[in-house]
Amino acid sequence: MDITTYIQNMGRAARQASSSMATATSDTKNAALTRIGEQLDAHRDKLLTANQRDLDAAHKQSLDGALLDRLELTQDRINGMLEGLNQVIALADPIGQMTDMGVRPSGIQLSKLRVPLGVIGIIYESRPNVTIDAGSLCLKSGNACILRGGSESLQSNRAIADSIESALASTGLPNTAIQIVNTSDRAAVGKLITLTDCVDVIVPRGGKGLIERISAEARVPVIKHLDGNCHLYIDDDADITMALALATNAKTHRLGVCNAMESLVIAEGIATQVLPQLKAIMDSHNVALRGCAKTRHIIAGIDAATEADWSTEYLGPILSIKVVDGLDSAIDHINRYGSQHTDAIVTHNTERAQRFVVEVDSSSVMVNASTRFADGFEYGLGAEIGISTDKIHARGPVGLEGLTSQKWVVHGDGQIRQ
Amino acid sequence: MDITTYIQNMGRAARQASSSMATATSDTKNAALTRIGEQLDAHRDKLLTANQRDLDAAHKQSLDGALLDRLELTQDRINGMLEGLNQVIALADPIGQMTDMGVRPSGIQLSKLRVPLGVIGIIYESRPNVTIDAGSLCLKSGNACILRGGSESLQSNRAIADSIESALASTGLPNTAIQIVNTSDRAAVGKLITLTDCVDVIVPRGGKGLIERISAEARVPVIKHLDGNCHLYIDDDADITMALALATNAKTHRLGVCNAMESLVIAEGIATQVLPQLKAIMDSHNVALRGCAKTRHIIAGIDAATEADWSTEYLGPILSIKVVDGLDSAIDHINRYGSQHTDAIVTHNTERAQRFVVEVDSSSVMVNASTRFADGFEYGLGAEIGISTDKIHARGPVGLEGLTSQKWVVHGDGQIRQ
Repeated sequence: MDITTYIQNMGRAARQASSSMATATSDTKNAALTRIGEQLDAHRDKLLTANQRDLDAAHKQSLDGALLDRLELTQDRINGMLEGLNQVIALADPIGQMTDMGVRPSGIQLSKLRVPLGVIGIIYESRPNVTIDAGSLCLKSGNACILRGGSESLQSNRAIADSIESALASTGLPNTAIQIVNTSDRAAVGKLITLTDCVDVIVPRGGKGLIERISAEARVPVIKHLDGNCHLYIDDDADITMALALATNAKTHRLGVCNAMESLVIAEGIATQVLPQLKAIMDSHNVALRGCAKTRHIIAGIDAATEADWSTEYLGPILSIKVVDGLDSAIDHINRYGSQHTDAIVTHNTERAQRFVVEVDSSSVMVNASTRFADGFEYGLGAEIGISTDKIHARGPVGLEGLTSQKWVVHGDGQIRQ
Repeated sequence: MDITTYIQNMGRAARQASSSMATATSDTKNAALTRIGEQLDAHRDKLLTANQRDLDAAHKQSLDGALLDRLELTQDRINGMLEGLNQVIALADPIGQMTDMGVRPSGIQLSKLRVPLGVIGIIYESRPNVTIDAGSLCLKSGNACILRGGSESLQSNRAIADSIESALASTGLPNTAIQIVNTSDRAAVGKLITLTDCVDVIVPRGGKGLIERISAEARVPVIKHLDGNCHLYIDDDADITMALALATNAKTHRLGVCNAMESLVIAEGIATQVLPQLKAIMDSHNVALRGCAKTRHIIAGIDAATEADWSTEYLGPILSIKVVDGLDSAIDHINRYGSQHTDAIVTHNTERAQRFVVEVDSSSVMVNASTRFADGFEYGLGAEIGISTDKIHARGPVGLEGLTSQKWVVHGDGQIRQ
């Protein structure tokens, strides 16, 4: 079978499965998630063996350490997958919620009903745990899904797929509710993202290059997570101890995550007090600083930040620093160079805090809190399928609700339009 | 200036204007809308003269009657534009609404803040009234917009643009908050829909061909309104008088609108009673019927419906009819051939009504009401910028709220992530 036919068949099967999924009860969906966990638990050895084959092949191709780390499954990571399943089981089911009910002057009763999107395509890197995370969120939200993990993880994903398939079959849900693209042919992605008849939304997860390419080529709507070039702005009216604690947490708590601070913006009036202390802290964490001219005037011996630095998500031990004359310049700088992900202000001035909240055009805006809180679990969504840097549909952490939409429901007793 | 530079400049100006628009108060926005109305009213003659030039040119090119009708402005139509402005002024401002407030276990206070999308690009046919409708909705929802009407209406739109510009200037809003593409060069559209840095969403309005082309070529997210192939399903348990009244209203109230019924689906058990009466009614409205084999067995002398008929939005005096054995077949037929716009069931059986509501995958699903109610005004949204047949973001009639999104707002007092 050629790849076009293969993906089309998957799409049709997913579309068909989506009808049953849309009407599945919470109990049935939770039972299926429980069974998936049981199957994975029962087949740990098979899973680890398959994963070892992926790892061996990756070693032979001399793939880099970060990729190997993401690819590797261990007993602990399998435990994490099972724990994730339990968390999704515990989440409230958004499907079937009715809101905005009312009677219109014509006499029709109007309401909105929360329903699944239908079929979700997820394209991700070689991280087998995402197969379970993404699949379980789609299942719980009543969607069918087609999962396309990185080709390096194909053996692992096949083993996971076997567990999923037998679990679905045993709970009466269609075994095509969660399908895994079983080929490393990259043409599969190109086909999947243009299958407008059968796929309702594409969620790409991974590096910026992958996501930009998918966004450019997709015909199906995309919920995308581009970069997290997050800022912390220290205002003149900041508590300096708090500011230093927040900057330290935002930068050093985890370096390689999307909600880490990549750039510090600071008001001129407070910079001379804060920056030398910040330098000492960042030195102790081996974080290199790159600054604007004013920054380098206050803390000598650091590299100059280039224009490119202001737009860069380092995902590593580098921090750029910009001294500004006040709030207006800070907001301009953040809106110009930021990635509309997460930006925070440290201040006790409520008026400036409010202006920052309203005027910084990012999915999460924070006052006196670490950017690291921009996260589905911290926001109470449970697991997240990603953090959207788009403005339409879901913004910021996307949980179950982001995988649903609302249809209008009208009840009448024979009303006609006059 | 080449077209690329021209559109890029408009995009940058719109992006800049969007910051002021996002913080404009309801009073300021309403004052601007009032001033726009005053300016239009004061310059009726200029507007009609410009429109006459468009009409003369269109006549010379022998453009069709429907286009000429949409293009023409009259005193009545200008009154309609002013009335539309007043309706938008009367709508509640969605910007600034805070919802989902709560304190998380970490101590951060979380909420969602409703904000404008930013910059909206609207591409539409040669209908000068849309310039005011779309512009006023974007303005009220705090967005900047770039409007690109059909080239046949360029003179009319220039005259409207003059009124808008002087109104904006006099209320202190940026005069680039509403910009009109002042060229008939079609390359402008191609540039506008790929201007991802400056435009947040594209709303195409018009024929299916235009919308499909824009969706295929756009890089900016699109809120689209494709066809309205709407169904009415008459169940075995329908009140026959009600069913006939609803079918008549849904088909004949207005033929050329997207929420008109294009296809009637009817249960076998009731078809012999209903179809002959329906035929008489449709005959009296000069609506031609096309039926499946079973339909033609009941009402002789009508054309056979081909496979293509089931997918066709006639927008005219034709109705296709399909007899099915019951609800399952009806739902299958509608989900297969419908356009996910609006579909209705006539029944007194609450269980089947509920199944129809849940299982028919359309933006509006109705029980015992005419499909003609799928409309922003009827749903209480006020004006609508379109009716979305997409599933993500806004589904069905898109009013002010569909032109907004929600950002996450976090307030803390120094919380760091553990």
